[in-house]
Amino acid sequence: MSRKHHHVIGKDIRKVDGRQLVTGAPAFTTDFPEKGMLIGKILGSPEAHARIRSIDTSGARAIPGVHVVLTHENVRGGAPWSEARPDLFPRVAYTRAGQDYVEPSPWDFFLLDSKVRHVGDRVAAVAAESEEIALEALSKIRVEYETLPAVFTPEEAMRPGAPVVHDEPEIVRAEDSARNLCASVDVTLGDPAAGFAEADAIVEEVYRLQRVQHAQMELHAAIARLDNEGRLIVICTTQVPFHTRRQIAQALGLSIGRVRVIKPRIGGGFGGKQEMMIEDLCSALALASGRPVRLELSRYEDMNAARSRHSMAIRLKTGAKKDGMLTAIEMTALVDAGAYGSHSPTVPTNTGNKNLPRYRCRNVRYAFDAYYTNLPPTGAMRGYGTPQGTFALECHMDEVAEKLGMDPVEFRLKATVREGDADELSPHIYEVKKENVPEDERIVWRFNSCGLQDCIRKGADAIGWAEKRRAHDAWNAKNTRIKRGIGMATASQGSGVAGIDTAGATIKLNEDGSVALYVGAVDVGSGGDTVIAQIVAETLGIEVADVTVFASDTDITPFDSGAYASSTTYVSGGAALRAAEEVRAEILGAAAEMLGVPSGELRLEERRIAPEGGKGVSLRDVATFLAYQKKVQVEKTVTHVSPVSPPPFAAQFADLEVDVETGRVRVVDFVTAVDAGTILNPNLAEGQVHGAVSMGIGYALSEELLFDAKGRPRSRGFLDYKILKATGMPRLRTIFVETYEPSGPFGVKAVAEIPTNGPAPAIGNALRQALGVRLRDLPFTPEKVLRAIGKL
Amino acid sequence: MSRKHHHVIGKDIRKVDGRQLVTGAPAFTTDFPEKGMLIGKILGSPEAHARIRSIDTSGARAIPGVHVVLTHENVRGGAPWSEARPDLFPRVAYTRAGQDYVEPSPWDFFLLDSKVRHVGDRVAAVAAESEEIALEALSKIRVEYETLPAVFTPEEAMRPGAPVVHDEPEIVRAEDSARNLCASVDVTLGDPAAGFAEADAIVEEVYRLQRVQHAQMELHAAIARLDNEGRLIVICTTQVPFHTRRQIAQALGLSIGRVRVIKPRIGGGFGGKQEMMIEDLCSALALASGRPVRLELSRYEDMNAARSRHSMAIRLKTGAKKDGMLTAIEMTALVDAGAYGSHSPTVPTNTGNKNLPRYRCRNVRYAFDAYYTNLPPTGAMRGYGTPQGTFALECHMDEVAEKLGMDPVEFRLKATVREGDADELSPHIYEVKKENVPEDERIVWRFNSCGLQDCIRKGADAIGWAEKRRAHDAWNAKNTRIKRGIGMATASQGSGVAGIDTAGATIKLNEDGSVALYVGAVDVGSGGDTVIAQIVAETLGIEVADVTVFASDTDITPFDSGAYASSTTYVSGGAALRAAEEVRAEILGAAAEMLGVPSGELRLEERRIAPEGGKGVSLRDVATFLAYQKKVQVEKTVTHVSPVSPPPFAAQFADLEVDVETGRVRVVDFVTAVDAGTILNPNLAEGQVHGAVSMGIGYALSEELLFDAKGRPRSRGFLDYKILKATGMPRLRTIFVETYEPSGPFGVKAVAEIPTNGPAPAIGNALRQALGVRLRDLPFTPEKVLRAIGKL
Repeated sequence: MSRKHHHVIGKDIRKVDGRQLVTGAPAFTTDFPEKGMLIGKILGSPEAHARIRSIDTSGARAIPGVHVVLTHENVRGGAPWSEARPDLFPRVAYTRAGQDYVEPSPWDFFLLDSKVRHVGDRVAAVAAESEEIALEALSKIRVEYETLPAVFTPEEAMRPGAPVVHDEPEIVRAEDSARNLCASVDVTLGDPAAGFAEADAIVEEVYRLQRVQHAQMELHAAIARLDNEGRLIVICTTQVPFHTRRQIAQALGLSIGRVRVIKPRIGGGFGGKQEMMIEDLCSALALASGRPVRLELSRYEDMNAARSRHSMAIRLKTGAKKDGMLTAIEMTALVDAGAYGSHSPTVPTNTGNKNLPRYRCRNVRYAFDAYYTNLPPTGAMRGYGTPQGTFALECHMDEVAEKLGMDPVEFRLKATVREGDADELSPHIYEVKKENVPEDERIVWRFNSCGLQDCIRKGADAIGWAEKRRAHDAWNAKNTRIKRGIGMATASQGSGVAGIDTAGATIKLNEDGSVALYVGAVDVGSGGDTVIAQIVAETLGIEVADVTVFASDTDITPFDSGAYASSTTYVSGGAALRAAEEVRAEILGAAAEMLGVPSGELRLEERRIAPEGGKGVSLRDVATFLAYQKKVQVEKTVTHVSPVSPPPFAAQFADLEVDVETGRVRVVDFVTAVDAGTILNPNLAEGQVHGAVSMGIGYALSEELLFDAKGRPRSRGFLDYKILKATGMPRLRTIFVETYEPSGPFGVKAVAEIPTNGPAPAIGNALRQALGVRLRDLPFTPEKVLRAIGKL
Repeated sequence: MSRKHHHVIGKDIRKVDGRQLVTGAPAFTTDFPEKGMLIGKILGSPEAHARIRSIDTSGARAIPGVHVVLTHENVRGGAPWSEARPDLFPRVAYTRAGQDYVEPSPWDFFLLDSKVRHVGDRVAAVAAESEEIALEALSKIRVEYETLPAVFTPEEAMRPGAPVVHDEPEIVRAEDSARNLCASVDVTLGDPAAGFAEADAIVEEVYRLQRVQHAQMELHAAIARLDNEGRLIVICTTQVPFHTRRQIAQALGLSIGRVRVIKPRIGGGFGGKQEMMIEDLCSALALASGRPVRLELSRYEDMNAARSRHSMAIRLKTGAKKDGMLTAIEMTALVDAGAYGSHSPTVPTNTGNKNLPRYRCRNVRYAFDAYYTNLPPTGAMRGYGTPQGTFALECHMDEVAEKLGMDPVEFRLKATVREGDADELSPHIYEVKKENVPEDERIVWRFNSCGLQDCIRKGADAIGWAEKRRAHDAWNAKNTRIKRGIGMATASQGSGVAGIDTAGATIKLNEDGSVALYVGAVDVGSGGDTVIAQIVAETLGIEVADVTVFASDTDITPFDSGAYASSTTYVSGGAALRAAEEVRAEILGAAAEMLGVPSGELRLEERRIAPEGGKGVSLRDVATFLAYQKKVQVEKTVTHVSPVSPPPFAAQFADLEVDVETGRVRVVDFVTAVDAGTILNPNLAEGQVHGAVSMGIGYALSEELLFDAKGRPRSRGFLDYKILKATGMPRLRTIFVETYEPSGPFGVKAVAEIPTNGPAPAIGNALRQALGVRLRDLPFTPEKVLRAIGKL
């Protein structure tokens, strides 16, 4: 299976949706306005925690051009999914095992409530003839709030007697201090106490991560309308069209068959579009008005009333032998869930289980508690909990190396995993979420592909690790204003969610040998559609131009659980591969009949089927034969779930300068060496690395969502929330350390998230060299830098 | 399999597309204009037969707003389908066996030619900013024609030395008199000469059928555009979206995957939309201009430059015994193919093989010759050649009965087939078309369901045959101006084309138990989508509201050869049934797992799966279990071809009055007793009968396309071409004589065409009683009536 036999795999194939993107053709949700479309707007709460005593909408309704005003008084949620067998629906994923309550989860949403739990929480929604009228209507809604005491940190939320964010009567809490507990996990492998007892050195520190936001270019937007037969059509910018379809149906009490969710091109998601956000309200407005309705968040709303990455405080305690072998690791995280559950029961599992297994250690404990607060809900964001853990663990491991007197690279070459090593932690955490995983899968997963050691070595070579490390020490000894540092971090992630991510693919063979490919997979801009088309083209011996990709329209494509967990190429691509293999078998069978040669002796290459060195037949003729002689519409649908989630690995290196007068950090050079299995499309894969590193550096240096003492957002847009600009980017280099992952199509693993994990700790570790002090709280703003070196 | 067990089969389910049709929502092709759309127009030839010496389009091109002018000089046809294996493509259907030439066929089209062969033949096409500009452009195209001598009847066309309509060099004719021969068939069963020799009576007459037109309400129309990625999207009113897709691709040299054909709601087709008509030119204009283009025929063009029903002269010679047993039938038809092949090689086969097998006779000969003429091409039209044969044969059989001194009803009860009888003729004619039909299928087909005898009896009872027959004779003896007559005819048709019609169906199970149904089948307004949804709902124990039908979009649905030969319910419904059965098996399998009961013991009814009398589980819960626990997207695609084409049967009865002063015929009462197997939706089936009878009466009394001596149309629209109005309709009654056809879904046969066959002969036979003379030429206009009774 070496690359030289591939004709499209490993090639820089141009994006199948490239033409529309570069020509500015209508491609994104708001590019598709409807005739007679109304504009929807949401009234956000000014209070962090309050009960709505009354709402007077008469003033809003009286405005000409206002069609609908929805409040909790005239909107009800939909029916429960299944009264008869609630156990069938995977709420178990969101249930804390052994507890006597059920978490509020994405399945338990309601459109509008009589209580608000964060500033910006939904109070009312209007649909009007124009945005101006809609905004005027919002201003005329009179709401009387009963302000409640609020909690803004997990520390506050866990205090006995703290205000209770979710006091719904159906949520029965076992104990007072758990009233605000959203989710928690506590898993131990081996005997950490014994491990610490045999350690030569123990390091224990706390690392703090701020709340950041996806800052994707395309804001949350949806257009909902009824079609000719009264079906609800929702075009929206989502990573999860099928879940959104189901949730809209549940929320509005419709059959799923009466709802269509269309995902057009997406201007970035990064996890922020990994759950239904505004589609329910937009649909309700369309149903209530009988008119098409567009609902789009403003940047302010997107940033402060949608989702953000969990802030955490992570305590790490590690025991090590002098030679760098680890004896025990204990990691505990305190997590801010914000006002609603969203992904909080699952995101923090990754903080441990996507990071700790990267190090060889038999005695491990990982625990987290996620608490509701009166800040906007935190949710999924690129890395899905992993970047927080990577920052903590990789800074921490540098501290361990330092204590052992080892070079960080040398230490990691010693301490990290390699091919064949076991991952015992992940299955146990996974088990908490999914109790019906087969026993034999629960015990241990192995890394069947692991290029981490090579990543560390090649990345170190590329950045010039040893020389720079020495040179920077020399420079820093001589220079007082500009200090230099080099740092590194290892990283790992997953490829989809093992046993959970579900991808359907359908391939229809046209009578000239071209194919239509239907996947529920969601290309969020990453090029997923293109890579999946490559997998199909490679398997069928055709060109990507012969593959028409239909992606993510719930009316057209088979089910896919969506774009998250770096699953698109690995899981959805796996479905496409299997469907293509089934189509291929039909083609070879027909060719065998035409040629009188057993199909096992036939090869399908370059649109031609032939035995080795023998006379063949064109794919076109075989397809015509199948269509018009055999009279078969060759069309195959496959559903694919991977029982494992093989981690990609990376080593990332930052070379930087700090101006100790201004506190400003400038990353000069950045190297990512990544093992993502086989690289299917180097250009697109490198694009993922660049984007992820850029987000990682922003996370490290400047991004933070801030709130005032009353929970009111202080980050109102890109003037207040600093993402990296092109001018702030270092030299970027990417090294693909290819391995062959047997469970992935053509040996692939994921590449979408992992490169965002390492920049922050690599920078933190470089700052340690540059400044001589350790910073453990992100982001490394000039203020914090100056404070760390005693200049503020 | 009796109806009482069905919950949606046999019910008057409202049409699934009913809401949009009655509310006037955008539903038909021209309801979907595109931004920036140009208007296309075609320049038709004023000459019946001419060579184009030159075309000067400079004047047209100079008009502001004219974007494209296409002529034969700047347009080329596409590449042949398969150079390597032309035998793979079913051109054999259009090849005259044993002849040394290949017929021009729908596969061999070209966009524009340097020769015109009928008035209205395509000369040029323009696309301009408006219809006015496009028409002005047409007027500015200067064409120099070399007028050629023309032929307007088959009799002229077959004369040695006649002008040759198709003198393309690749068409090599064996003999001079065959130069204009388009297609011919000559099949003999048994020994007709011996049969005639043993006959007690022989009748021989010639019957003449005029050329008529579909007169469907919606004109031929198409809108073609390029999408964001340069694919060609064609929305058009077609009965054959997949063939149209292929033909556009071939014509324009595109991959099939680069072409999408969307069939929206259709305002009637009746066979006129059974081939690509203007979609190629519309697409060429869109490609050439880079703009969306709408091309719509005017009523004049639709009536005179599209397709029409074949005019024929049919000679029938029948030998019979005194007791009504037939000893021999010989039927020969001379057929006007018009200027192009279109469906002429196949339509006249039906004239014999859908009619002659209705009578018990061992010695049969059927032959036809179809000749090219310089009139517009004849093509498919409801009945597809059968109505011509039914008129001839049923008038003729009345004449045989009269000669034998038998009552027409009594005679037919004696002479017609019943269940289990063999159809030996059809397979032989079929064999001419399709040489690879298996040997055992060729020999004999049997009527496994035949309610003809019951149709005759029940229809006669309903119309009051015996009493009226006597009463009218008495009336006619007393009254001089208004004469009365009652007549009857039997009829038969097919259900799809055996071994040819190909239907794909895909069913996708949603996670709440609703389903999406994808069929290539084309609902031309008949309710096909609804009936297919009923088949699926019945099979899955759900309601039609739980089935969302996606029909006829080549991007979305599996292949279907299209709506013709009354195939939709029988063939496409058969595909849907099989797909539903596969989905059902998955549901039962999952329910068996959930309930711990073998799936063979489970019943699926009313959205619930349970063992007889036992505890069950809801379909919703099973679907959820499959989607989220088993993680399977249940989606099944099935292709269905029926090896047989079981005929529906009918007996039709007309009671009429003739004003012998004006010659006007008024049908007073009309009864159709029809065996179409199981009736799936009585309301929709009766709608088919009403429409078909209305067309049949118009065919009998008033409709005729006329041309002047130079081949110029004299029927310019509904002022010159008289279709029946509501005020001209008799009392209509329909009796469904249900049988169970084992090869059809739920026992169904076709009902769409058969009722249009009998009205003309029933009226002709009634006129015989009313007037005392026999009219053998359609239509029975006042002029012909008066001439027949010597008053003109």
